[in-house]
Amino acid sequence: MSERFETAQDAEDTFYDAFEERDLEKMMTAWSDSDEVICIQPMRTQVQGRVAVRQSWEEVFSANMKFDIEVFHKHWFETTDLAIHIVHEQLIYNENRNQMPPPLVATNVYRKDDRGWQMVLHHVSPPPPPMMPQVAGVGPSTST
Amino acid sequence: MSERFETAQDAEDTFYDAFEERDLEKMMTAWSDSDEVICIQPMRTQVQGRVAVRQSWEEVFSANMKFDIEVFHKHWFETTDLAIHIVHEQLIYNENRNQMPPPLVATNVYRKDDRGWQMVLHHVSPPPPPMMPQVAGVGPSTST
Repeated sequence: MSERFETAQDAEDTFYDAFEERDLEKMMTAWSDSDEVICIQPMRTQVQGRVAVRQSWEEVFSANMKFDIEVFHKHWFETTDLAIHIVHEQLIYNENRNQMPPPLVATNVYRKDDRGWQMVLHHVSPPPPPMMPQVAGVGPSTST
Repeated sequence: MSERFETAQDAEDTFYDAFEERDLEKMMTAWSDSDEVICIQPMRTQVQGRVAVRQSWEEVFSANMKFDIEVFHKHWFETTDLAIHIVHEQLIYNENRNQMPPPLVATNVYRKDDRGWQMVLHHVSPPPPPMMPQVAGVGPSTST
């Protein structure tokens, strides 16, 4: 079952808590009931619809990898009934901050109906390969 | 200079025409004047702001690769002043349809002000590696 949230941020907090806890039922509460929902994850093909999104997360969680996630908000585009959050996801394995992978970049979209906010899109990109040259002025945004 | 468009789709058409034509000035007409604009491309770090977005496209176009792009609309989330288009971008090199790379997945966001629509976000993901196993029921969406 999905829930409705008072704010897009509440839905996002539930999403990342569930991700960190590998809690499939909690994860699906963050997502809209609608079969419009779309999830695009690195190394995986795009999935659409609650059943496919649930199956995708079930597979992600079955990998049984334990990590913490720190979420950095880079920018929001928000209106009264649609919210787009661009975030960086920093995964931390075994509480080891000395060997962290580069952060993933995610676009999360939340939609509001008359009962509240829910997630409808999660689109994540892998970071550029570490050996790619970084061009001056084209580095990651420093805005928060 | 940026323009205002009557619909989000008009802005998107200009964006992809400019991409295909490698026309930097035309490309920048599709984007909002706002420094909120964000571009996340495969193999490149996220950039924010018109200057950085322009520089990023200048670098992409300088590669001097000639291709056609076919855009397949997978799903839209739209309200009166914010539109999110999830599309597949099929690049076709040298008009060779027998050796096409797998399509890229993009989330394009358009915002409307009192003068019209403009692009504010372009987030593209590379496809999964070809050797990744495809899990039943987790394939690409067939909705259009």
